[in-house]
Amino acid sequence: MIKRLLIANRGEIAVRIIRTCRELGIETVAVYSTADEGNLHVRLADQAVCIGPPPSAKSYLVRNNLIMAAVNTGCEAIHPGVGFLSENADFARMVRDKGLIFIGPDPEVIELLGDKVVARSTAKKFGLPVTPGTEGAVSSGEAAEKAAKSLGFPVIIKAAAGGGGKGMRIVRSADELSENLSIASREAEANFADGTVFIERYLENPRHVELQIIADGNGNVAVLGERDCSVQKNHQKLIEESPSPGVNPEMRKRMARGATKMFRELKYRGAGTIEFLVEGENFYFMEVNARVQVEHPVSEFVSGVDIIRQQILACTEGRMEIDPAKVHLSGWSIECRINALTPGTVTRLDVPGGPGVRFDSFLYTGCVVPPHYDSMVAKLIVHAPTRERAIARMERALHELSIEGIKTNRDQQLRIIGHQIFRSGDFGTSYYAEIQKEVERAG
Amino acid sequence: MIKRLLIANRGEIAVRIIRTCRELGIETVAVYSTADEGNLHVRLADQAVCIGPPPSAKSYLVRNNLIMAAVNTGCEAIHPGVGFLSENADFARMVRDKGLIFIGPDPEVIELLGDKVVARSTAKKFGLPVTPGTEGAVSSGEAAEKAAKSLGFPVIIKAAAGGGGKGMRIVRSADELSENLSIASREAEANFADGTVFIERYLENPRHVELQIIADGNGNVAVLGERDCSVQKNHQKLIEESPSPGVNPEMRKRMARGATKMFRELKYRGAGTIEFLVEGENFYFMEVNARVQVEHPVSEFVSGVDIIRQQILACTEGRMEIDPAKVHLSGWSIECRINALTPGTVTRLDVPGGPGVRFDSFLYTGCVVPPHYDSMVAKLIVHAPTRERAIARMERALHELSIEGIKTNRDQQLRIIGHQIFRSGDFGTSYYAEIQKEVERAG
Repeated sequence: MIKRLLIANRGEIAVRIIRTCRELGIETVAVYSTADEGNLHVRLADQAVCIGPPPSAKSYLVRNNLIMAAVNTGCEAIHPGVGFLSENADFARMVRDKGLIFIGPDPEVIELLGDKVVARSTAKKFGLPVTPGTEGAVSSGEAAEKAAKSLGFPVIIKAAAGGGGKGMRIVRSADELSENLSIASREAEANFADGTVFIERYLENPRHVELQIIADGNGNVAVLGERDCSVQKNHQKLIEESPSPGVNPEMRKRMARGATKMFRELKYRGAGTIEFLVEGENFYFMEVNARVQVEHPVSEFVSGVDIIRQQILACTEGRMEIDPAKVHLSGWSIECRINALTPGTVTRLDVPGGPGVRFDSFLYTGCVVPPHYDSMVAKLIVHAPTRERAIARMERALHELSIEGIKTNRDQQLRIIGHQIFRSGDFGTSYYAEIQKEVERAG
Repeated sequence: MIKRLLIANRGEIAVRIIRTCRELGIETVAVYSTADEGNLHVRLADQAVCIGPPPSAKSYLVRNNLIMAAVNTGCEAIHPGVGFLSENADFARMVRDKGLIFIGPDPEVIELLGDKVVARSTAKKFGLPVTPGTEGAVSSGEAAEKAAKSLGFPVIIKAAAGGGGKGMRIVRSADELSENLSIASREAEANFADGTVFIERYLENPRHVELQIIADGNGNVAVLGERDCSVQKNHQKLIEESPSPGVNPEMRKRMARGATKMFRELKYRGAGTIEFLVEGENFYFMEVNARVQVEHPVSEFVSGVDIIRQQILACTEGRMEIDPAKVHLSGWSIECRINALTPGTVTRLDVPGGPGVRFDSFLYTGCVVPPHYDSMVAKLIVHAPTRERAIARMERALHELSIEGIKTNRDQQLRIIGHQIFRSGDFGTSYYAEIQKEVERAG
């Protein structure tokens, strides 16, 4: 077992990683920007190193500083968390070149999965359906028009190197095509230094469904069920649940079979997610996130597996403590992301308790929520035998949660959870836009 | 489903009951003494009624006031919680006579189980071994001497109506017998208005093991595994776990078989516990607690069953949502009771989070812990796949827990959990006395 690990991240996910490291007997080194000096991850870690001021480009994204901090404190591994450098193949390579362990798959695997065109064709190879679209890059307006006509409108233009909605354009008719192709390509070039784009049929209101994978790098691949992340505001997930109300056992089996083959073939190591769009009983491979995800606790609740623990064991020792054939999923879990609507100082915090409730956060009474970072400040997660009871439990827990000093989206989450469409379980990624006005009303 | 329920209790257990009621859609009425006006159960309940000043004899134990509060607020049921009137057959009868539902078994069942001599013979009838002892009451010194000699010293004299160590004397030789018989009988008379005592062989360092039962009153009896409560200080439980490190599958099966028969025959309704003393592979029936217990969350963690929910459903609707044949137990759960060593005002509260951690408490920042009541202010409960990992998780969670403004036993719990004897799993009810000095040292 390694002795010491640096966490190249902040906030809730850094706290989450420290918790598992403590249980494994691994010492932790936190890094922090000057804006995060009083952050909970700094308080809970065994050591902490300041790595610069905000914004992230001057601290949490400065690769050399992170690696130097790890070397100087005698760390043997770096956990990148989520966001920041967690899917950056160059950083993973730098870590490896310094003789340190990167808690994630090999840089070559990150690279392969990071190119959406390559990832698509890899998924196809293992029997996973992809959204109908161009086989590879599209560069001319003519090729685009031909592709779009055969796919049928609407189509979506996507950046091969893309993410976060950048270099992405929805096109509803032939005459908008060529202009949007140029815009998408320029956006992709500007954001990812790679203007390559491709075209897919656009699904209007699919479900966003993803499988949680954990793999030891030696061909053992466990699937910890799926998550439904269809409640999204501008591509930002708000509520996640496991299982998905839109996935039946046969779909679940087919998804898992293809995913297992793919991750085994890639000699994938650690935690990863394979994302699908689901329309009725059809599902289409979208992409792989080669890291742990914010919403991993819902899978932890239904599977009883500590995903961060298995990720660390897989990446540091090439082993995991779960038998892929014996994964037992039970009950229903829902997560509500608690976002700060304003920065500020938390003057009071009441945390919900009781059975089947988990609260993961970096908040404490007196802590400062700086304006520089992601707005998520906590995750409230519940588990119950059925979806109906999980919803009742989430309502109960949201009512108990009280955060004073900053404005949060707690009341908005209560309105979503209480909405009849959410309760019906029958909704896709456009659902939130439909009820947004109702949810975000004042008061 | 009933609409409104009164909780005849305070503190953590009242909060616990409110949580389940909220999820069931049942409105709650809290009662409180003038010392508890700001208590969390008062804040979380839908309504609250003041029932008098401390001590409990002037408020939480005044049966008429509790029943009047229930009637006046339109409640259909009363939940007695733990302690106070939870095993008081007269109170249960008064509740029933007012046309209200008592959340517990029938008063006749409480009465029968409350008499230890009758309970012993009932248990024997269903094939449960009892500690070797007198068949019934012992009144003369001669009879006592004869019994003690055939049992072998040491013996224990117990009050038939007893509880809490009152009317209980350990006797190690014949010449101490007659004096202790008189003392025990007088103590029993003074405390329970019933001087009846009986004699059992005294076990020096047994394990305290108890089965969690939930039954619908119609003959369906589910056993949610056992709990080990051997870490006790002066008969007060400090740490509980499920399963027990000292119970093997064969013992577990035999205990459950006898308990199921007994509870079925009694037409037992709601939550109950059957307690055993365990010595090696032998176990002896001790008593039944005809109510929910403080340590029920460890059973909730390993079984996934909300015990308070099933208790309420059983008592109000004669049904439960679990199939006794399909109870699935998994992993290991440990509970540490967090006790206040001093009363005071909580000036800061940091609650642990992350996977497999539950914190049930009535504390919040700014709340007052009055001196009048039980010292337990919180329960920290963890769940993990193995005992070793549950211990690591408990250590981690105890480190995260911070309560300022009052002194608590947190550090003492850390020392017990960290002790090699606790880690070995090989200990009985005398264990704590052996390490008490080490655990309770200053600092």
